[in-house]
Amino acid sequence: MDRSKKIVRPKAITPRGFKDNFHSYLKKRDEVLEVVNRVYELYGFERLETPAIETVDALGKFLPDVNRPNEGVFAWQDETDSWLALRYDLTAPLARAFSQHRNTLQVPYKRYSFGPVWRDEKPGPDRFKEFYQFDADIVGSSSFIADAEMCFVVFDVLKELGFSVADYSTRISNRKILSGLVQAVKLADDTDLGDIELVVFRAIDKLDRLGLQGVESLLGKGRTDSSGDFTKGANLSAGQIDTIMSFLKIKDNDPYKALQEMGLLIKDSEIGQEGLGELKNITDALLSEGSSNPSFRIDPSVVRGLAYYTGTVFETELTTTTSSLGSISGGGRYDDLVSRFTGQKVPSTGVSIGIDRLVSFLHERDSKKEKGVVDVIVTVMDKNLMQHYINIASDLRAHGVNTDLYVGNPKDFGKQMKYADSRNAAFAIVAGTNELKDDIVQVKDLKLGRKLSVDISSNEEWKEQPAQFPVKREELIEKILELLRS
Amino acid sequence: MDRSKKIVRPKAITPRGFKDNFHSYLKKRDEVLEVVNRVYELYGFERLETPAIETVDALGKFLPDVNRPNEGVFAWQDETDSWLALRYDLTAPLARAFSQHRNTLQVPYKRYSFGPVWRDEKPGPDRFKEFYQFDADIVGSSSFIADAEMCFVVFDVLKELGFSVADYSTRISNRKILSGLVQAVKLADDTDLGDIELVVFRAIDKLDRLGLQGVESLLGKGRTDSSGDFTKGANLSAGQIDTIMSFLKIKDNDPYKALQEMGLLIKDSEIGQEGLGELKNITDALLSEGSSNPSFRIDPSVVRGLAYYTGTVFETELTTTTSSLGSISGGGRYDDLVSRFTGQKVPSTGVSIGIDRLVSFLHERDSKKEKGVVDVIVTVMDKNLMQHYINIASDLRAHGVNTDLYVGNPKDFGKQMKYADSRNAAFAIVAGTNELKDDIVQVKDLKLGRKLSVDISSNEEWKEQPAQFPVKREELIEKILELLRS
Repeated sequence: MDRSKKIVRPKAITPRGFKDNFHSYLKKRDEVLEVVNRVYELYGFERLETPAIETVDALGKFLPDVNRPNEGVFAWQDETDSWLALRYDLTAPLARAFSQHRNTLQVPYKRYSFGPVWRDEKPGPDRFKEFYQFDADIVGSSSFIADAEMCFVVFDVLKELGFSVADYSTRISNRKILSGLVQAVKLADDTDLGDIELVVFRAIDKLDRLGLQGVESLLGKGRTDSSGDFTKGANLSAGQIDTIMSFLKIKDNDPYKALQEMGLLIKDSEIGQEGLGELKNITDALLSEGSSNPSFRIDPSVVRGLAYYTGTVFETELTTTTSSLGSISGGGRYDDLVSRFTGQKVPSTGVSIGIDRLVSFLHERDSKKEKGVVDVIVTVMDKNLMQHYINIASDLRAHGVNTDLYVGNPKDFGKQMKYADSRNAAFAIVAGTNELKDDIVQVKDLKLGRKLSVDISSNEEWKEQPAQFPVKREELIEKILELLRS
Repeated sequence: MDRSKKIVRPKAITPRGFKDNFHSYLKKRDEVLEVVNRVYELYGFERLETPAIETVDALGKFLPDVNRPNEGVFAWQDETDSWLALRYDLTAPLARAFSQHRNTLQVPYKRYSFGPVWRDEKPGPDRFKEFYQFDADIVGSSSFIADAEMCFVVFDVLKELGFSVADYSTRISNRKILSGLVQAVKLADDTDLGDIELVVFRAIDKLDRLGLQGVESLLGKGRTDSSGDFTKGANLSAGQIDTIMSFLKIKDNDPYKALQEMGLLIKDSEIGQEGLGELKNITDALLSEGSSNPSFRIDPSVVRGLAYYTGTVFETELTTTTSSLGSISGGGRYDDLVSRFTGQKVPSTGVSIGIDRLVSFLHERDSKKEKGVVDVIVTVMDKNLMQHYINIASDLRAHGVNTDLYVGNPKDFGKQMKYADSRNAAFAIVAGTNELKDDIVQVKDLKLGRKLSVDISSNEEWKEQPAQFPVKREELIEKILELLRS
C-alpha cells in the first residue's frame, strides 16, 4: 500500500461562531423581514444597501469594548496595504454613504437597511459572529419627533408580529443626562472629565450583567470576577458613588415623576438639563395618543454600548409570558457621526432591530405549523419512461404546484418513498408501463399514509394502501389542485 | 489659530470595486428574487444559507485564474493564525455544508441559496468585487435529468421575467468531451496530460475575449496583448491546433448534428465518448416536449472558468433586441467537490444566476414605471401643532398609507414642499391653526401640481393652486385612500 500520498481532507465545518440556516428558519425570517419592511415603508423610509466591506477608516472605532478598540472587527490589508473591514453595524456605513452621496440625497434622509453584520467577539450558545440587523435611520433631523418615530416603528413591528404591549418593554434615556450627572457629582475637580465619563458609562453599561453591586464596585476600588481577574475601578468617593447609584435606581413607571427625580440629581448641569428637556419632549410625543403607554418607561441605566451615541438612547426587550428574550432592538441619536466625514454637524437618529433572536423565537413558537417545500413527488418506476415523468412534472409546475422529480438512483423504490417522506411531500405520483398504457397514474396521499401508519397498528391494513388511488392522466392536474386546496 | 490639532477626516467613499444600491434598484431586485425563488421552489428546491465567512481550506482553490491560485479571494488570518476567507461563490460552501450536515439531510439534497459573494479581482465599469448569486443545486444525483432541470429552471425564470426564447440562448457542452479531444490529438505522448488539459481549457475559456485568432496563438507559441505583455503558449503542433480549432468551430443549430461532428473529432477516447453520451441524454431531455427548443444549442467552446466542473457545463446569455447583456447564468456538474471532504463520491450539479446584471437591465428598462416610497407627506406649518401632525400620520399609517411626517427644520415651508417633491410623494397634508380650528386640512395633489407646472406656462394660474383642496379631518383617511386608488 502506498502511504506516501496521504490525503489531507479539509474539515467540513463552519468557522467557530458561524452557522448554517435552513429552510423553515429562513422562511420564518422572510415573514419577519416582510413585516419590518412594510412598517418601515409605512413611515416613509426608503431602502439603501451598502457593501459588506468598508475601509477601516470609514467605519471608525465605536464598538463597546474600549479596552481593545482594534479588535471585534474582521479586518485585513489589501494589496496597497490599506485596511479593509467587514461592517460591524449598519450605522457607520450609513454615515459614510450619506456623506458620499449627500449632493443627490434629499434631507432629511430617511433610509432603512437590512443585512448581516460581523463582529469578531467571543461566541456563545446564542451569540454568533455573523448576525442580521434591520435598521431605520433619519439623517439630518434634530427633531425629537424623529427619535419618537424610532420607538413607534418598533412598537408597530412588534404589534404586526402578534405581540401585545405586555410582551415587551422599551426603556429610554439620554446620554446628556448621564454626562450631566457626572458633572453634578463634581468629578471634574481633579480628573479629565472625558475619561471619567467613559469609565462611568462603561460601568453602567454592565448593569445587566453584573447587577447594582458589581457596578458599585467598578465605580469604587474595582472588582474581582468569578475567574479571579481584577478590573480596576473608577476610584470615586463614597458620596459620588451614592449619587450615581441613586440615579440608577430611578425606575418610576410614571415618566414625568422619573424625569423629576433625575432633575434633582443632575442639578443645574447645563448638558444634563438639555438632555432632560429632550427626554421630556420624547415622552410627550410617545404619549401623544393621550393615554399612558405601558410599553415604554424612562430608565437612567440605559447607555447602549456603541460609542457614537450623543443623546437619546433606547432599547426594547421582549419578555413574553413564556420566555425572556432580552434586548431585540435598540438605537438612539448620533449627532456627530456624519461630521466625522463632512466637518459639518448632521444630527441623526436611528434604530436597529436584531432580527435573529426574534426569528428564532417565532420559528420555535410556530414550528408545528410548518409545511415542506414540496407538494408532489414524481417517482421513477421505470427509467425508460423518463420522458413521461418529465412531462408530468413540468405540467404540474406550470400550474403552480411545487414538484420534485426524483433524481436519485431509482432502483430501490422504497428509498424513493422514504425520500418523499423526508421531504414532507403531500402526494407522490407513481406510474409504470401498465398505468401509462391505460393513460392513468397512481396518486399516493402521503399525509394520509403517514397518519394511517400511526393510527393503525395492523401492518396488513396499511399494505392495502387505502391512501392510494388511480387518476386519469388528463385529469391529474385538476385532481391535484383540488386535493391541495382541501 | 491653533494648527497643532489638524483633523484628518476619513474619506467618505466605498472601497474600490464596491458600490451602494438605492431604493428603486433594490425594489426591482426584490421582484427578480421573488420570481427566481418561486421557480426554484416549483422545482422542489429548499433554502439554505451559509455564512459569508468560511475557512480557506473548506473553500478550496477553484477560481479561474490558475496563475494566481491564492489571489482573487478576500482572506485573512484569525487570532489562531488559521486562514479565513469570504466566499467567492455559493457552491464551495454548499459542498462544505452538505458534508457537515449529511447525516440529517435527505439525498438527493436539492437546495437553493441567495446572497453576495466576493472576489478580489480587477474591477471594471460593470464588474464589482461584491456581487449577488442565486443558485440551485442537486447534491447526490448522477442523473442527467438533474442537469437538464438546471437548464429548465433558468428557462422558466427568464420566461417569468418576461423574456421570450428569442431573447436568450443557452450553450451546453461537457468537460469530458474536451478531455477526450485532448486525448485524441495525442497530446499525452510527451507531456503530463493533466497540465496540458488545463492550458487548453484556459485558452478556450478566453475565446469570448480574445477570439479564435487569440486562442490559436495561445495553443501555439504564445500571444502578445495590446499592452505588449507576452503570454506563453501551449506549444502544440500545427495539426493538433487545427483539430482543436475545428472542434471549437462546431456550431450546428441541430444538436444531434453537432454531437455527430464532435464524435468524429474525439474518435475513440473513452472519456470523450462518455461525455458525448451524457450530452446526448441531456439533449433528449431538453427536447422532451417533442419540438425543437431554440433556446439552447450545443457549443463545444463552453468551458466555464471554475475548476471544480467535471462533466456537463452550460451558460445562458441574454441577447435581447435592444442590448447584449452577456452571460447571466451558468453551471454544470461537479462530481468531486463533496468528496474533498468526505472521501466518498457524491455526484452533484448546479446552476448560478448572476442577479446583478439581470436586475440592472430590468431596472433600466422599467425605470419609468417607478413609484416613490411615500404616498403622503404630513407637513409642519406650526411647531406647536406637532401632536396633531403625529396623530394624522399615525392614522394614515394605521390604514396602510406610507406616510412621511416632516422632521427637518420646519421654518422654511418652501423647503418642505421641495422635500415632498424630491421624495416623489403623491399628496401633502397642510394644516395650520385656522384649518384645525375648522376641523379641516388642506390636501395638495403633488402629482397634479407637477403636471400643471409643466403643462401650464402661466405662473399665475399655478398660483391659484388648482391642485389643492380642503378636506374634513374626519373624512381625510377615506378621501386619501380613494385618491390613491384612482
